[in-house]
Amino acid sequence: MLRLSTLFVRTLRDDPSDAEVPSHRLLVRAGYIRRAAPGGYTWLPLGWRVLRKVENIVREEMDAIGAQEVHFPALLPRDVYDATGRWTEYGDNLFRLVDRKGADYLLGPTHEEMFTLLVKDLYSSYKDLPVSLYQIQTKYRDEARPRAGLLRGREFLMKDSYSFDIDDDGLTNSYNAHRDAYEHIFQRLGLPYVIVKAMSGAMGGSMSEEFLAPISVGEDTFVRCTACDYAANTEAVTTGSLAPVTTEHPATSELHTPQCSTIAALVEYLNTNAARSDRAWTASDTLKNVVLTLRHPDGTTEPLVVGVPGDRDVDIKRIEAQVSPAEVEPMDEASFAQHPSLVRGYIGPQVLGINSASGIRYMLDPSVVPGSAWVTGANIADTHVLHLVHGRDFTADGTLEAVEVAAGDPCPMCGGALEIARGIEIGHVFQLGRKYADKLGLTVLDHNGKQVVVTMGSYGIGVSRAVASIAEAFHDELGLKWPRAIAPADVHIVVTGKNGDDITIAGEQLARELELQGLEVIIDDRNGVSPGVKFKDAELMGIPTIVVVGKSLADGNVEIRDRHAGTNEAVSVASAVQRVIALVRS
Amino acid sequence: MLRLSTLFVRTLRDDPSDAEVPSHRLLVRAGYIRRAAPGGYTWLPLGWRVLRKVENIVREEMDAIGAQEVHFPALLPRDVYDATGRWTEYGDNLFRLVDRKGADYLLGPTHEEMFTLLVKDLYSSYKDLPVSLYQIQTKYRDEARPRAGLLRGREFLMKDSYSFDIDDDGLTNSYNAHRDAYEHIFQRLGLPYVIVKAMSGAMGGSMSEEFLAPISVGEDTFVRCTACDYAANTEAVTTGSLAPVTTEHPATSELHTPQCSTIAALVEYLNTNAARSDRAWTASDTLKNVVLTLRHPDGTTEPLVVGVPGDRDVDIKRIEAQVSPAEVEPMDEASFAQHPSLVRGYIGPQVLGINSASGIRYMLDPSVVPGSAWVTGANIADTHVLHLVHGRDFTADGTLEAVEVAAGDPCPMCGGALEIARGIEIGHVFQLGRKYADKLGLTVLDHNGKQVVVTMGSYGIGVSRAVASIAEAFHDELGLKWPRAIAPADVHIVVTGKNGDDITIAGEQLARELELQGLEVIIDDRNGVSPGVKFKDAELMGIPTIVVVGKSLADGNVEIRDRHAGTNEAVSVASAVQRVIALVRS
Repeated sequence: MLRLSTLFVRTLRDDPSDAEVPSHRLLVRAGYIRRAAPGGYTWLPLGWRVLRKVENIVREEMDAIGAQEVHFPALLPRDVYDATGRWTEYGDNLFRLVDRKGADYLLGPTHEEMFTLLVKDLYSSYKDLPVSLYQIQTKYRDEARPRAGLLRGREFLMKDSYSFDIDDDGLTNSYNAHRDAYEHIFQRLGLPYVIVKAMSGAMGGSMSEEFLAPISVGEDTFVRCTACDYAANTEAVTTGSLAPVTTEHPATSELHTPQCSTIAALVEYLNTNAARSDRAWTASDTLKNVVLTLRHPDGTTEPLVVGVPGDRDVDIKRIEAQVSPAEVEPMDEASFAQHPSLVRGYIGPQVLGINSASGIRYMLDPSVVPGSAWVTGANIADTHVLHLVHGRDFTADGTLEAVEVAAGDPCPMCGGALEIARGIEIGHVFQLGRKYADKLGLTVLDHNGKQVVVTMGSYGIGVSRAVASIAEAFHDELGLKWPRAIAPADVHIVVTGKNGDDITIAGEQLARELELQGLEVIIDDRNGVSPGVKFKDAELMGIPTIVVVGKSLADGNVEIRDRHAGTNEAVSVASAVQRVIALVRS
Repeated sequence: MLRLSTLFVRTLRDDPSDAEVPSHRLLVRAGYIRRAAPGGYTWLPLGWRVLRKVENIVREEMDAIGAQEVHFPALLPRDVYDATGRWTEYGDNLFRLVDRKGADYLLGPTHEEMFTLLVKDLYSSYKDLPVSLYQIQTKYRDEARPRAGLLRGREFLMKDSYSFDIDDDGLTNSYNAHRDAYEHIFQRLGLPYVIVKAMSGAMGGSMSEEFLAPISVGEDTFVRCTACDYAANTEAVTTGSLAPVTTEHPATSELHTPQCSTIAALVEYLNTNAARSDRAWTASDTLKNVVLTLRHPDGTTEPLVVGVPGDRDVDIKRIEAQVSPAEVEPMDEASFAQHPSLVRGYIGPQVLGINSASGIRYMLDPSVVPGSAWVTGANIADTHVLHLVHGRDFTADGTLEAVEVAAGDPCPMCGGALEIARGIEIGHVFQLGRKYADKLGLTVLDHNGKQVVVTMGSYGIGVSRAVASIAEAFHDELGLKWPRAIAPADVHIVVTGKNGDDITIAGEQLARELELQGLEVIIDDRNGVSPGVKFKDAELMGIPTIVVVGKSLADGNVEIRDRHAGTNEAVSVASAVQRVIALVRS
């Protein structure tokens, strides 16, 4: 029994000043977690109970698909991550340190290498496969901007598992088993989720899907088709193959366009000074060339220009997903000045491309299809060109999914309209393939006695992040509202009496009886705390069932409140135990 | 059910080359752990089960004394450890790192500061106390010489708890509660232990005891009195107050002693060239002055000379315990050369002491009592002095427990003979007192409304080290022999048949029935593995009860082997379930 008179918890009336999102605010206010470091949180007793319940559900479902639990160190030697290139590729996101002997170490952000080597160490034959291994372990990432409490920390609890198969069919089976297990996990947690196609980023590999909790404070943006079942992280949306334009276009012509360094100014100038006969010029007739810098993990940089229709913004995260592990940023003034061929506000593709005079890589969004004509910069101050045709007058070094996906964009599968939403990444399943096994030499003998490279999958669930995601999904202005499976207790008994009075005796009695029935009970037995404060704390802490033992005891009743339904019922003392059990086990 | 046909385990016939102690050898050979980094081990499924069982016993006993579980980050900001001086004091033993923003962090070796600040954060009144908090968490120490597998790692699992009380009586109660809980824990683990007085080292504080498992591979040496119940780590043995010598001594005289730079040579020379009339000279008549260097955590060094009777060695660990956080080492040649007053082999106290010409600190072991006379160096090559009397002819800067304690030395409590043994430190309880609360400002209002500093205790159990200690305590030449409470399974069924034959069917049936009775079962269902290999693996893995379903099935029997008793009994198939249950629950 947890007694609020002694439980190590203090609720806060006010929001912590650094909390941006409801889960962070409420978990701190209700006494579940406490900030200990930038991106690092201490779990107080109530929070620790929730975390362990989530962890146990994850463990049970992993065990149910035959995955076996192991546990690696978090402090790992550099050489293994050097072998796969990730020591460098992880860039600033990796916590690195040097031991007393001068050897390089890292704090594991994820353990592909270690699992690969462990299987290599123990297994040698196709008969040993398939095998799936997992751990539930503290992970470290030196996030540039730790934020939102547990949602993006630098030290967090993660379940990571890895499958090892002899061939692609085996990998598909292991992948599907994990995907199914993840569905069971999130269903048991009571956490709504959407499965979306994903990019695999620095992880390598091919097929990859994310489990997102569709919650507006999430950092991920995803699309769903309103007509078919297509769903994808915006980073992973691929534009369907677009037909080239076959219209004949007039010859290119230059136009003096003073003070037209923005798209808006240019369109207005065109409609005033070079009006079309068929319709007005719009931003979508213009080709915008956005100048970026790629920053590689080894610290080197590279200029990149991306051409997109003038009515669309570029989406840096989408571009990053394609050039990973490089990071992408707008080119700064100093770097810009080093490229005299770039005329600010009047950049056009004529001087771009790796084989051009500038040597700057030039990529086009797929919506700039071959045969289409554009108004774009002439690379001369105050001058644009009209009717510059892709394929006739300029080419690029390739295509790159670059524009921000917008609601109403066509679905790449069926052409239907896409809708856009935000979500929290709560799980990720990858078909890694042979990348790690190749680099680390994980082979086994097949049934013909031939060495074959093992194929792998990698599967993650953020356990501590799941706690925050559930808090995001289930709360109201009064506080948290935990799903039963992971609430820190089954029932919260509020006793409004004083030590030794009838109310207190009845409350203690009820608590004991419920505990004898196997329920986890919190009892607010604090002396000298007003009923109003006790009610508020109970609502804030969010145990799904609250029993108030108070004034109505005089009529032989207690009050049962349901945090989810928002209901409030009077129940006789005699039937209270049965009623609570019925609610908890429903 | 754990099936050896699919369990992620491979036993090894040969000892790993880096394994010095039985627990390390056997845990690796039996497939419980695997080296992943210097001082870092991966837990394989069998090992992970044992570790979690140990962890749960620790948790249950902590909960039973009302301690509340929380969980801190391992990656901690420097400032907190600066406030108590431990950022520096920990010296090279601390893993330090810098994040992407250039801020200093450490990997927590122990969490006194964080717990102190957490209680300061939440609590403010004497009414809130006492409270005991604990965590079971991965800890990091950059050991100079990680060794012996799990016994001295750099990343390890530890339970650390902290008590907070308003006064010394409260602290005594909390301390005793933890001490009792530790006794329960080690009793439940089946691990033999001795409670010894201890020094508190870098932790500060006063009263401190260690729980040692009396095992010869242990790094700790402790004494026990053969007459009373005194027991202490040798570092903490304090010599009882020794009576000064009151005999009159002859005046000091110098003696030419060529080639007498060792005690043995000196004694022989004395007996030949300056024989006593009453008895022969012995090494215990000589005063040996040992030249050491103190290395402070900030990197500075300081010379120190320690005087001990010539028949005793100095014990660096005992000295270190008294000068902590400084480390102690013999002075190297280069440093020695910087002190021309030190004549190698002929050093005497006449030139030593902070107020002497040399300015070198000089400390005496308490056995060099005031009034005692010595043969010692004259600080002149080839010359010693006779009858140099402590107090008459020389003094020191103080006393320091410096000699290696020897079997037969007198007990400081009763004067009885001490015996000496080795042990593994498996637990440590400290009365920290107000050191941390003072430095970090943890005060509460007392019942008079006055701010008082809280007094603290700190209590540790090495959870992963306990696993290795149990393996040290329970093994034979064939393999491990787990106590039932923490064995990875209750019973190990060896099936010597082939897929589908009667033996296999009977073995599988027995396994199912035992599992239905709530037992944890390992079944060796491997095809194509000989009975001999299966028996060897079962003995190596060390499940306490082994059931062999094999040839004797023809007579309606199975064989039940007890790893601890070494017995072997034939039991009818019909009664096997009841017999195994009786053994497991005995």
